[in-house]
Amino acid sequence: MRLLISVFFLVLSLPLSAQNNTELDLMPMPANIRMGSGQFVVDASFTVAVGGPKDSRIEHAAERFLDRVAAQTDIPISRTVGSGSAKLVISVAKAEDNLLALGSDESYVLDVAPTGMELSAANDLGVLHGLETILQLLKASPIGFAVPALRIDDAPRFPWRGLMIDTSRHFIPMEVIKRNVDGMAAVKMNVLHVHLSDNQGFRFESHKHPKLQEMGSDGSYFTQDQLRDLVDYCRERGIRVVPEFDVPGHSTAWFVGYPELASLPGPYEIERHWGIFDPAMDPTNDKVYEFLDKLYGEVTEVFPDPYLHIGGDEVNGKQWDANPNIQKFMKSHNLPDNHALQAYFNARLLKVVEKHNRDMEGWDEILHPDLPQNAVIQSWRGPNGLAAAAQASHRAILSNGWYLDLMWSAERHYMNEPFSGDAASLTPDEQKLILGGESCEWTEFADPENIDSRIWPRNAAIAERLWSPKDVVGIESMYRRMYSESRRLDSLGLTHNANYEPMLRRIAGGDNIVALKVLAGVVEPVKDYTREELHKADPATQYTPLNRLIDAARPESETAREFRLLVDTYLAQPSPDRVAQIRTELTVWKNNDAQLQPQIAQSFLLKEVAPLSANLAALSNIGLLALDRIEHNQATSDAWRTQSLQQIAGASKPQADLLIMIAPAVQKLVEATPR
Amino acid sequence: MRLLISVFFLVLSLPLSAQNNTELDLMPMPANIRMGSGQFVVDASFTVAVGGPKDSRIEHAAERFLDRVAAQTDIPISRTVGSGSAKLVISVAKAEDNLLALGSDESYVLDVAPTGMELSAANDLGVLHGLETILQLLKASPIGFAVPALRIDDAPRFPWRGLMIDTSRHFIPMEVIKRNVDGMAAVKMNVLHVHLSDNQGFRFESHKHPKLQEMGSDGSYFTQDQLRDLVDYCRERGIRVVPEFDVPGHSTAWFVGYPELASLPGPYEIERHWGIFDPAMDPTNDKVYEFLDKLYGEVTEVFPDPYLHIGGDEVNGKQWDANPNIQKFMKSHNLPDNHALQAYFNARLLKVVEKHNRDMEGWDEILHPDLPQNAVIQSWRGPNGLAAAAQASHRAILSNGWYLDLMWSAERHYMNEPFSGDAASLTPDEQKLILGGESCEWTEFADPENIDSRIWPRNAAIAERLWSPKDVVGIESMYRRMYSESRRLDSLGLTHNANYEPMLRRIAGGDNIVALKVLAGVVEPVKDYTREELHKADPATQYTPLNRLIDAARPESETAREFRLLVDTYLAQPSPDRVAQIRTELTVWKNNDAQLQPQIAQSFLLKEVAPLSANLAALSNIGLLALDRIEHNQATSDAWRTQSLQQIAGASKPQADLLIMIAPAVQKLVEATPR
Repeated sequence: MRLLISVFFLVLSLPLSAQNNTELDLMPMPANIRMGSGQFVVDASFTVAVGGPKDSRIEHAAERFLDRVAAQTDIPISRTVGSGSAKLVISVAKAEDNLLALGSDESYVLDVAPTGMELSAANDLGVLHGLETILQLLKASPIGFAVPALRIDDAPRFPWRGLMIDTSRHFIPMEVIKRNVDGMAAVKMNVLHVHLSDNQGFRFESHKHPKLQEMGSDGSYFTQDQLRDLVDYCRERGIRVVPEFDVPGHSTAWFVGYPELASLPGPYEIERHWGIFDPAMDPTNDKVYEFLDKLYGEVTEVFPDPYLHIGGDEVNGKQWDANPNIQKFMKSHNLPDNHALQAYFNARLLKVVEKHNRDMEGWDEILHPDLPQNAVIQSWRGPNGLAAAAQASHRAILSNGWYLDLMWSAERHYMNEPFSGDAASLTPDEQKLILGGESCEWTEFADPENIDSRIWPRNAAIAERLWSPKDVVGIESMYRRMYSESRRLDSLGLTHNANYEPMLRRIAGGDNIVALKVLAGVVEPVKDYTREELHKADPATQYTPLNRLIDAARPESETAREFRLLVDTYLAQPSPDRVAQIRTELTVWKNNDAQLQPQIAQSFLLKEVAPLSANLAALSNIGLLALDRIEHNQATSDAWRTQSLQQIAGASKPQADLLIMIAPAVQKLVEATPR
Repeated sequence: MRLLISVFFLVLSLPLSAQNNTELDLMPMPANIRMGSGQFVVDASFTVAVGGPKDSRIEHAAERFLDRVAAQTDIPISRTVGSGSAKLVISVAKAEDNLLALGSDESYVLDVAPTGMELSAANDLGVLHGLETILQLLKASPIGFAVPALRIDDAPRFPWRGLMIDTSRHFIPMEVIKRNVDGMAAVKMNVLHVHLSDNQGFRFESHKHPKLQEMGSDGSYFTQDQLRDLVDYCRERGIRVVPEFDVPGHSTAWFVGYPELASLPGPYEIERHWGIFDPAMDPTNDKVYEFLDKLYGEVTEVFPDPYLHIGGDEVNGKQWDANPNIQKFMKSHNLPDNHALQAYFNARLLKVVEKHNRDMEGWDEILHPDLPQNAVIQSWRGPNGLAAAAQASHRAILSNGWYLDLMWSAERHYMNEPFSGDAASLTPDEQKLILGGESCEWTEFADPENIDSRIWPRNAAIAERLWSPKDVVGIESMYRRMYSESRRLDSLGLTHNANYEPMLRRIAGGDNIVALKVLAGVVEPVKDYTREELHKADPATQYTPLNRLIDAARPESETAREFRLLVDTYLAQPSPDRVAQIRTELTVWKNNDAQLQPQIAQSFLLKEVAPLSANLAALSNIGLLALDRIEHNQATSDAWRTQSLQQIAGASKPQADLLIMIAPAVQKLVEATPR
């Protein structure tokens, strides 16, 4: 697929394995890099031309590229894309404006020499990826803004690299979706999966069934024109759009306008709580299929992608159990249980989906012996579900391990290898059925203000897992490059960094957030579904403001991670520098509480963090004592150690739904004290 | 003018003079504040209603207000504006969508009680101002998001409170203008003056004379539709728009398409340099007036404001001197000099302006005994020019002292009192002719990326000078409130804070900007026109990237100002805390150079700051030595002091066009050492 090989790339130095190129701030790491010597300098004479076939997508991409080069450098650069020769020549074997099929060749070759750059690809898609690579490489050097001389020969590991955004639980406006699409393109993701309906809101404008959005969305929905525009926006960036309309469960919002679709009579209201709820469509009702047939007719006019996601997850079956007619139907149709009833539903639904020339996609639960083979399984349950799908000859994508809303570390997401667990032992043919994966951002606790910080920068690490060779696994390299990418994403308008301090100022009720930032810098939101579990007595709803410290705090604390590394390094190899650094940090944390407590009285949003702040001081104090004992080789008593470990355990419990992430390092210090 | 007095404002505590209300983060400070007791809490039940007459401008303003309340709190609040009762009731005596005349009543009364808020005004304009006041007051309190109970009875000191933006030297796109309009509205400014043409670009789309923008703008101009939309955007925010087309000088860009208007034959090119240039329109050419007549016909259809700014500044007369026909004309018309010729031009132009029902406005230079009385003078030369205009019975506004591009401190702008110099002794009738003033942002060294940081937050201090009572002059209060306002302006999309670190990262060529930030934090760009004077040999042009440290550095260093205050306080009243704080800061600055120097080799943009960084270290070292001598009461030698003061003088000279603003404080420490 490397059709066009540069003629001017002459000077090659040592070939390097991708993993060793840690000096290049690239994410995802390309499959192959060979460093050259020297660099190409971008100045006011910079030009771009398309050397061969050209279409509007390539031209638009080149114009956006020129805008971003100008923005990165502040050099006034002509926005004109030429033909023939230029400082950057883009060539494709075939220009294809509309090419956006799963499995299309996305490879590209980038040759950078001091005299110019050449980007060649089989088609438009590779061009889009290659331009992003150049933008990641371009930065100030000793001789000007420059791209290092090199040759990159790159192609993705998986053809399906997606991000799912839940627009139902909290409505996520189009501008927020679009800036996240820009972020996806920057890290070479190629599928936007929009979760358009759920119990808490129906977000698609239906002309056939207007009560869906009129009664099921609080007025917050996407018009068909907006969605068509989104599809076009994504197409321009090489990104497919897969719409999801979750059925037969997760569908309360549908029943507000159309209670006759449900398995029990209404009336229904938009669900304001989070969780799994009883309402489900009635699989025995022919009208349900007719209704979906009409809706899919509209949906498929808006979304051209061959895949239609029908959800299919988390049907608890209670409404089915409670409806005698459904029970009778199950008996007469030999459907032994609710899973079989759902399989019946899926089988009938599949015919509707196929009528509209779409392949059905659904969550694990749709997997059933009767499920037709061309249905694609999205596995939220794990690599074993993925393996089960492939072994049943289904194509599958992985999402388990990539739920961004669970607040895991980037490392944990990054090391989530699709071919692990049962999937590690798939046959080569079965392996081919694993198309890739999708990260998922469910929005119980994300809204337009903080959703970017839940998705980025961790999503860049997931994008790398899906794009780069399997053996690209260096954690420190990943973190370094992920934080670089995080800053670049700022320039695309993503707000994961920009909204952080304003949210802290709101919480503080003023501009002085010095102490609050110190505290916020070492905590993380509780993981998995703990936030909901901690508030069972007074659960959050769609109306609950997301303005607490947990909503501002980053999913992963960079400071705490670095501190844990520092302590590990120190314990393995003590040095005066390391001791000094640990002592400085612990002292700042120990003293921070005295700074923060007076402020806490000023704002109702700070009240809940008082014990958290006190715990940070207590932990740091223990850490300092332990460090002194280690440094002076003074034995500690069993009683002190026991008491300290108890205190650490106490301070490690959630406060204000937040965890103090330096606790494990302090514990290691205590455990390392001489006896 | 206080037509509607609240009935529910019952509990009043001590009345406070405006200046003493430093605890309230308001800017501009209102004319009258009486604090009440308690506070009004904004929660999910918050509602807004218009109690009396209502129009679309009030309704839109209330909707924007609700959006901003929701954004400030993250509380989901209904966007519906009701009628009758509500938590906030807005009342106007008369609703007037289109009221936007100079001198309109802009007063409002805001009553806040624990039970609700009432905003009353004579008309729409006061409502707009009052809503901004509420947004400034709303923040987290111990019992929730709250506005303190109080009564504000407010009205502006001057009716003309403007900001001029030069869109010619660097083109400033509409989105940038609009976000600055939002900023103006937030600080109650009411005139946007758009400088639409100059030697470096003609930015108005003329249908009558299309070569103006086609040949004079590099394709960067505003369409009439865009400008109409801007006028509407401003009207909705209570802001008049005054367009300026600078003639007869500052007009090279016009002559590219229409050389026949000039006083000497062409051809002409768009001017790329900065400064005063020779080309000027030919005042003896009837076609010039016909040309302007047609243009003004278009301009006045787009801009409804009664004022048309004709510029009139800095005509050097060289083209007039060089044209024998013009010389002959001057003799035959008894025009003794070029100033008289320009007065002749202005007199004829005035007829054209009047034909289009506009009042003429111009810079000081148009002042001439023959100038008709209704022309308004904008004084860039100073309070004496302002006084001269008023004494000649002209209305006048002040801009001298408020040129934001000169990089003065906020304090200097703030203390620029219109009634000073000759203007201090104007008669009461003459004083009435002083309408107010305008800050000006000329864009030789500002572009879309950094213009906000040149305008904000200092423009808020100027806005306060024009709005608040003359005796509101507390400097520390102003700075505290200005920096609060600066953060609030972030939420309007202004980029004065947001773009700072990205620009530093660009300069550093990487993400590690710890040391660069320390340096950038204590420097300021050179003042007045020094930047141009320092580069006479190789002057900047329109093509010069604005990506140096001077382009990122803030016009005023908050850190250095606070350090100078700290040193002053310490020298007046030494204390261990102050010594410790001074020592800590000087030590950081002293050690910073060692951190920064290794990075300097990595980026061509950092090279020029190497001596600056070294100077900061040297200055800090001297400061530390002086501090030790003072603290230990050890005498210093004359030689040491002389040498130190020489070093300080050297380090105070511009490096990379930047000044180290802690130098004066270090000098004071040296001078305070015991002899």
